Amino acid sequence: MFVIVVYDFGEKRVAKALKICRKYLTWVQNSVFEGKITEGNFKKLQKELEMKMDKMEDTLILYSFQSTKYSKRDVIGCEKNKPTVFL
Amino acid sequence: MFVIVVYDFGEKRVAKALKICRKYLTWVQNSVFEGKITEGNFKKLQKELEMKMDKMEDTLILYSFQSTKYSKRDVIGCEKNKPTVFL
Repeated sequence: MFVIVVYDFGEKRVAKALKICRKYLTWVQNSVFEGKITEGNFKKLQKELEMKMDKMEDTLILYSFQSTKYSKRDVIGCEKNKPTVFL
Repeated sequence: MFVIVVYDFGEKRVAKALKICRKYLTWVQNSVFEGKITEGNFKKLQKELEMKMDKMEDTLILYSFQSTKYSKRDVIGCEKNKPTVFL
């Protein structure tokens, strides 16, 4: 499946969310990640994020797509998630 | 079609991007918008954003889905895009 994860975590928890998402997905920009993932790993990712978040303050939005057959992804401007960013 | 728009614009241009996206889509959080839109309006939105952006500095990522039949959207925690935010 293909997923897009958008999080808005408080300052104290945002680094943890970044670290968790990086294990499973590709960073897009700011607090947005995307990628192909198995259903099992998607559940793991969700659980790990839920354990770190403050549900009264933080938000986590998960879009999941069983198929990307009818989808398109366009990048305009300067793509920031080039591999060098991760070095 | 259903679209998700993620932008990362410089400080001077970010308010313009927000204003343009709000005309067509629903704010999700930070610089992420989503919504159902016609193909014509999606092109308009894209053009308007392209006119305001600095392509050397800013990024615009557009995900578009012809069908949301095989997709899911989950919100965990505190949903921030309640109507009152727009008042």
